[in-house]
Amino acid sequence: MAEEAALREQAEVVRRLKQDKAEPDEIAKEVAKLLEMKARLGADEGKHKFVLKTPKVSFGLVALWVVLLEVTGTRDYGPKQMAIRERVFSAIITCFKRHGAEVIDTPVFELKETLTGKYGEDSKLIYDLKDQGGELLSLRYDLTVPFARYLAMNKITNIKRYHIAKVYRRDNPAMTRGRYREFYQCDFDIAGQFDPMIPDAECLKIVHEILSDLQLGDFLIKVNDRRILDGMFAVCGVPDSKFRTICSSVDKLDKMPWEEVRSEMVGEKGLSPEAADRIGEYVQLHGGMDLVEKLLQDPKLSQNKLAKEGLGDMKLLFEYLTLFGIVGKISFDLSLARGLDYYTGVIYEAVLLQQENNHGEDSVSVGSVAGGGRYDGLVGMFDPKGRKVPCVGVSIGIERIFSILEQRLEASEEKIRTTETQVLVASAQKKLLEERLKLISELWDAGIKAEVLYKKNPKLLNQLQYCEDTGIPLVAIVGEQELKDGVVKLRVVATREEVRAA
Amino acid sequence: MAEEAALREQAEVVRRLKQDKAEPDEIAKEVAKLLEMKARLGADEGKHKFVLKTPKVSFGLVALWVVLLEVTGTRDYGPKQMAIRERVFSAIITCFKRHGAEVIDTPVFELKETLTGKYGEDSKLIYDLKDQGGELLSLRYDLTVPFARYLAMNKITNIKRYHIAKVYRRDNPAMTRGRYREFYQCDFDIAGQFDPMIPDAECLKIVHEILSDLQLGDFLIKVNDRRILDGMFAVCGVPDSKFRTICSSVDKLDKMPWEEVRSEMVGEKGLSPEAADRIGEYVQLHGGMDLVEKLLQDPKLSQNKLAKEGLGDMKLLFEYLTLFGIVGKISFDLSLARGLDYYTGVIYEAVLLQQENNHGEDSVSVGSVAGGGRYDGLVGMFDPKGRKVPCVGVSIGIERIFSILEQRLEASEEKIRTTETQVLVASAQKKLLEERLKLISELWDAGIKAEVLYKKNPKLLNQLQYCEDTGIPLVAIVGEQELKDGVVKLRVVATREEVRAA
Repeated sequence: MAEEAALREQAEVVRRLKQDKAEPDEIAKEVAKLLEMKARLGADEGKHKFVLKTPKVSFGLVALWVVLLEVTGTRDYGPKQMAIRERVFSAIITCFKRHGAEVIDTPVFELKETLTGKYGEDSKLIYDLKDQGGELLSLRYDLTVPFARYLAMNKITNIKRYHIAKVYRRDNPAMTRGRYREFYQCDFDIAGQFDPMIPDAECLKIVHEILSDLQLGDFLIKVNDRRILDGMFAVCGVPDSKFRTICSSVDKLDKMPWEEVRSEMVGEKGLSPEAADRIGEYVQLHGGMDLVEKLLQDPKLSQNKLAKEGLGDMKLLFEYLTLFGIVGKISFDLSLARGLDYYTGVIYEAVLLQQENNHGEDSVSVGSVAGGGRYDGLVGMFDPKGRKVPCVGVSIGIERIFSILEQRLEASEEKIRTTETQVLVASAQKKLLEERLKLISELWDAGIKAEVLYKKNPKLLNQLQYCEDTGIPLVAIVGEQELKDGVVKLRVVATREEVRAA
Repeated sequence: MAEEAALREQAEVVRRLKQDKAEPDEIAKEVAKLLEMKARLGADEGKHKFVLKTPKVSFGLVALWVVLLEVTGTRDYGPKQMAIRERVFSAIITCFKRHGAEVIDTPVFELKETLTGKYGEDSKLIYDLKDQGGELLSLRYDLTVPFARYLAMNKITNIKRYHIAKVYRRDNPAMTRGRYREFYQCDFDIAGQFDPMIPDAECLKIVHEILSDLQLGDFLIKVNDRRILDGMFAVCGVPDSKFRTICSSVDKLDKMPWEEVRSEMVGEKGLSPEAADRIGEYVQLHGGMDLVEKLLQDPKLSQNKLAKEGLGDMKLLFEYLTLFGIVGKISFDLSLARGLDYYTGVIYEAVLLQQENNHGEDSVSVGSVAGGGRYDGLVGMFDPKGRKVPCVGVSIGIERIFSILEQRLEASEEKIRTTETQVLVASAQKKLLEERLKLISELWDAGIKAEVLYKKNPKLLNQLQYCEDTGIPLVAIVGEQELKDGVVKLRVVATREEVRAA
């Protein structure tokens, strides 16, 4: 079993490198080595197919699972995490239903070609299924493309739906930052031909309601418009063919300073320094209705048809958001780009804010928790006659929200219950199993959430301890005296108060 | 586009064969042809990668999606189906929580080797992911093996949990019978070392509660025990090495008459005719506590250690089920086998019953809607030291239940609502968009489920029609007069009653 020891050692090397945030290439090299060792060991295991129970062989398997979770960025969710998740899902679903949404579900895999050409540079992150004789399939990368495919396939031109499900990306997992290869998405979308910006405004209202509800702290919703970006690129002298790639550079402005983004544009992407500088002036702008008005007067932008359309709609959006009373949290931000190819109009992203220091007024963004926008062309890509169905939607960054709430809960003393049991049916003496089972059966049939210890003769102390450990508030105690009197003793665990109930 | 026409034609051929329940081989041949045509067309499509918007090309894609759903046995769930699903899930989760269960979740894929050797002859149905450089992964085949892996990995020796998620099987889809390649499973399991048969009895109580709750009609829960089966095989003269394969023959008795099963045992599996006949006598027995008592006196079975253990536990189980008041729906049935390798003790399966005719008392089984059993060895397979964690659980056949309820709903006149909207904010005259948006914002903030049409100047009639179509019970009407008076007119859609609210 020297090989297994070596394997565990190698897994440790990988773990340490990741902890020390080593160069990705170096990590990749060591992971490759690890996988090779594993493959060798796996081949050996084939011979022992029927002795999987042998401890030493299956030790390898458990070690590998731990490594797998580390390397592939998947994970189990235990009862505590699921309890937090259920709370968050419930808050979000309540909001979606408050806005009249239906719910749909689609398969976890799609035809590979359905996903092709929808995600720009990110397409390399798609997980494919093995060709086992049949269609080429891929795991879904988001919920938006399957939604568009669903609309086209069923000729639906009008729907407001939400969809909460897992999606898959072969990304470099950086689990400390709450990024996984398998993660939940949580989408709300409105499809249909409507008067401009009313559904778009509702999506932002939803983001505002959810983030307020969850009490995640201060936040800001940045908005921009693909047409304003494209118009801006045009008036700055970016050639048409470079729009998308320059847009993806602008998208990095939330993580990189302008100087670096500029040198990527000029150095890597061959943009002229003058054009880059002109972009630089625009993308530093952010504000509210005042900025919209100012740009509508901008001598260059106002001459561009696309930009003018986008700015007109932005003005309308601010009017509606004012009516919704949420304009205080909205920032029109010309540096907001969002990478995905399919956006055609307004785009937005919500970020949490943190005070930079105790004195100042400044606050900095600590990460995106929601994002979305308008994509009027995507459904048409799947329709036989190219019929378009305009769509706008928002995706709640639920994994980020989970990890914030998990951390917060860990830091606090609060104990989270993972069951909802109201009462434990206990016995005071031995030989009362029959009576306990009879009583609990009656409670279950009456709809009461009840548990019983699976022992013939449990000690009363152990039964009370179980309540303490799991947070069950009540004990129904069956005892000889009570049986004689035809009653049950009901005890409040926290206060030890007792009542006799008939 | 002649190729696409041919493709559609071929898809139609496949559909017709399936409809006519043709020979599987014949269907497979035509499906293979279809896939080949598709592959050819797909290769051509590659050239048009950037003109996906071209109608004729994308027509191919939509046609293919329809074919894919047909061929791979996956499907979308629309709002109506999801509404039914939500009702059923909610009933089941309520029951699981009533019994004190926690909830967990695991990744959709597992290490391929985690699944190896757990499913007997069914292992060929596992879906593998493409090797894109990394571990070899497979889509989960059920929720039981991932649960066992989770327990071993986290050294959990004691838990009561449920898990509702999709699993994947490369089965021949027979969608008319409610079988898909992607489908939900809905599992409740109790892990831990406890006094015998108490958790086992609770699992059966849960099945009884859920099937009663959902009002699916009359049902029967068949129970048996792997040890009784193995003891029976031993005393009938089946060689040890043939136990599993003979067991899988017995498993077919719910679909095939005894004569066919017998000839499989003798002809294909090489069992002696005498042994088969002895098995034949046992597997026709079914009954209640009386049958348990009778077999405990059986001169051959009672001499077999395993069978005796199994029968002793079966007696205990019937005692507990009597206390739970559900023994009337339980049948001890020696023909119940269940195919999966991992069961070690009691096994059970619930079937719906249908009156055979209007006069007689006889009723026949119309399919399994729940099943499960005890698997005390599975967790040990994943534990470094082979430590066992005894488990017992049940899986609710939720897809079968969905399709029964869907059919029932279709047959009835009942209209199912897919949203929960309580009120539509409408306007009586033009130019009241601002007022509508202000009012609905207030309603949302007060937690009221409300919608508004995304039009600047919708007609009142259209707004009322929307309520009729979607089942919204109330309309809040904003009008010039109401605005002057500072009130809103509230109208009950069904009765047309109106009140003015301040």
